[in-house]
Amino acid sequence: MKKLINDPKNVVNEAVAGFEAAHPDLVRVSHDPIYIVRADAPVKGKVGIVSGGGSGHEPLHGGFVGSGMLDAAVPGPVFTSPTPDPILAATQAVDGGVGVLHIVKNYTGDVLNFETAADLAAAEGIDVRSVIVDDDVAVKDSLYTAGRRGVAGTVLVEKIAGAAAERGDDLDAVAAVATKVNSQVRSMGVALTPCVVPHAGEPSFTLADDEIEIGIGIHGEPGRERIRMEPADAIVDRILAPIIDDIPFASGDSVLLFVNGMGGTPQVELYIVFRRAAEVLAEKGITVTRTLVGNFTTSLEMQGASITVLKLDDELTALWDAPVHTAALRWGK
Amino acid sequence: MKKLINDPKNVVNEAVAGFEAAHPDLVRVSHDPIYIVRADAPVKGKVGIVSGGGSGHEPLHGGFVGSGMLDAAVPGPVFTSPTPDPILAATQAVDGGVGVLHIVKNYTGDVLNFETAADLAAAEGIDVRSVIVDDDVAVKDSLYTAGRRGVAGTVLVEKIAGAAAERGDDLDAVAAVATKVNSQVRSMGVALTPCVVPHAGEPSFTLADDEIEIGIGIHGEPGRERIRMEPADAIVDRILAPIIDDIPFASGDSVLLFVNGMGGTPQVELYIVFRRAAEVLAEKGITVTRTLVGNFTTSLEMQGASITVLKLDDELTALWDAPVHTAALRWGK
Repeated sequence: MKKLINDPKNVVNEAVAGFEAAHPDLVRVSHDPIYIVRADAPVKGKVGIVSGGGSGHEPLHGGFVGSGMLDAAVPGPVFTSPTPDPILAATQAVDGGVGVLHIVKNYTGDVLNFETAADLAAAEGIDVRSVIVDDDVAVKDSLYTAGRRGVAGTVLVEKIAGAAAERGDDLDAVAAVATKVNSQVRSMGVALTPCVVPHAGEPSFTLADDEIEIGIGIHGEPGRERIRMEPADAIVDRILAPIIDDIPFASGDSVLLFVNGMGGTPQVELYIVFRRAAEVLAEKGITVTRTLVGNFTTSLEMQGASITVLKLDDELTALWDAPVHTAALRWGK
Repeated sequence: MKKLINDPKNVVNEAVAGFEAAHPDLVRVSHDPIYIVRADAPVKGKVGIVSGGGSGHEPLHGGFVGSGMLDAAVPGPVFTSPTPDPILAATQAVDGGVGVLHIVKNYTGDVLNFETAADLAAAEGIDVRSVIVDDDVAVKDSLYTAGRRGVAGTVLVEKIAGAAAERGDDLDAVAAVATKVNSQVRSMGVALTPCVVPHAGEPSFTLADDEIEIGIGIHGEPGRERIRMEPADAIVDRILAPIIDDIPFASGDSVLLFVNGMGGTPQVELYIVFRRAAEVLAEKGITVTRTLVGNFTTSLEMQGASITVLKLDDELTALWDAPVHTAALRWGK
C-alpha cells in the first residue's frame, strides 16, 4: 500500500485538519467529535441540512458544506458510518431554530446512526426530518444495505435541498424537494480497479487484468456482474440502460446528466463516458439541459465511473442553478 | 491496460467531443484541427490568451477556457505537443484585435510549435507575445526540456493573466503579469505510481511497491531521486524545502498554497499533504492567504501530488480573486 498518509489511524483527523486550513472562508471544524459546519453556522431562521457517512468518498460530504448546500458534514472513519454523537453535535451546531434535515445515504449503519441522532436531537427540541437517498439501480439489497444503495445522486439531493433551504423554504418544503429529487434520480457505476482502505492495507476485492465490475458499490461492494473489459461505449450502454428503464426516463424529458469519477479515473475518460451517455439519451429523445462531470462521490483511488440521471422540471432546474459556495461546487454570487 | 476508452487513437477526439457536449455554455470546439475556444470568442478589444500542450493533464488546459481565464486551449495527443496548425487556428479564432498571449509550458516540443505558430500569426498581422512557464524546481534539464519544466504553476499563470486580460489590460501588461507570476511561483511533485499512455498500453516507467519518485515530471520523467516510501509529512518536507529555498520564500511573505493531485490520488491524501505544507510554511513565518486543492494538472491516473507556492501581493491577490467561469475553476458573478 502506497498512500500519502501518516498513521492510517489519523487519515480522517489529518484530512479534516487540512480541509479546515484550506477553506477557512467556507467552513469551521470541530475536532472532537469530528464534524464540519459552514463558517456562519447556525444561520438563524434557515433550515439546517446535515449529511455524512464514512470517509473515502470525498468531496462527499465535507466538500459540499457552505452557503447554498450543506450546513454540516459528519465524516466517519473510512467506509464506516459516523456514530450518533457527532451527528447529534452537528445537528445542534446548525440548528437555526426552524428545524434540521438529515440527508442519509441508504446504508444500514448510516440509517441507524442518523436515526439515533435524530431521536436525541428531537428530545432536545430540535425538529429533525430525514431523507434517505437510494439512487443506485444496480442491486436491490447489498452487503451493507437493505434496499438500494445511496450513491452519486446524493450530490444532487444535497445541492437542490440546500438551495431550497437557502431561499427560505420551511422544513416540510426542504424535505419534500429532497424526497422529490431522490424519486427522480437514478445511478449506476462500474469499477476497473479496487481501492485500498488505509487501515486494511489490502484491496477489499480483486479484479483480474481484463475484468471489470458492473454495478459496483462505492465501498467496492459487488454489483450485478463481473465481465471482461469492453470499449467505453459498450460499458456506458450497459450501465445507462438500467438507469433509463428504471423510472423510466422517456422521450421529452429534460435531465441533468452527471458523470462521476470514482477517484482514480483520468478526466479524459470521464468525458468519453459523458459523450456516449449524452448520445444515447439524445437517441431516446431525452434532452440533457444541465451537466456535471468530475470526481464528486469517490471510492478512494478506485478507477471507474458512475452515471447519474436526474429528471428536471423548472423548479429543480432553478434550484440547481442557484448560487452555491462550497469547496467542491461553486457558482453564482 | 484497463481504461474507459474506445480506440486509443480516438481518446483526445472523443474526450473533446464530450467536453463540448458537457459545457456548451462555456466553450465551442473546433474538431479539425482540434482546439477549444470560449463560447463568445473572439472578444473584441480584449487580449486573447491561448495555452495548450499534450493531453493527459486535464483539466489543464481545456478546463480553464472561459471568461476570466483562457480564450483557447489546444490539446495535442496524449503527452505530445500540438502541431503549429491548431495553435495558429486557435490564435486566429481568439484574436480580438489587440493581440494574443501564448502561455507555454517549458517543453521543447511545445516551445517550438508555439513559436512557429506565433511567427505564422505575426505574418498575418496578429500581435503575439509568449510567456514560458518553468516553475518546477526538481530538475534543471530533463527528458523533454531545456531548463526547468512547466507544471502546476501554469494554472496560476493562466488564472491571473486571464483576469488581467478580462479587466482590459493591454498585451504588454498581460504578458508582464504572466511573467511576474512565473517568476514568483515554484512547484515540485512526487509520484507513487506511474501512468499508462493509452496508445502505449504500458507504464512508461515502473516503481517498486515500496518506492516513490521525488521530483517527478508530469509525463513521468525522472525527478531527483527514487526513495523508499515514507510518511506523508516526511514527503511534504522533502518536496517543500527546495520550493521554499529556491526564490527563496521568506518570513513575512504572503502566498497562495496549491496542492495538486496527479489524477489518481484520493482527496483525503491531498488534504493531508495540504495540512503539513501549511504547517511548514507557518513555522517559517510565511502566511497562506489563498489556497487551491485538487486535480488541476494531472498525469492521467498517476498517484501522487505536487505542491506549488506563489508569492502574492495586492495586485496578484485581486487578480486571483477576480471572477472566473470555466469548467474547472469557477467563482464570482
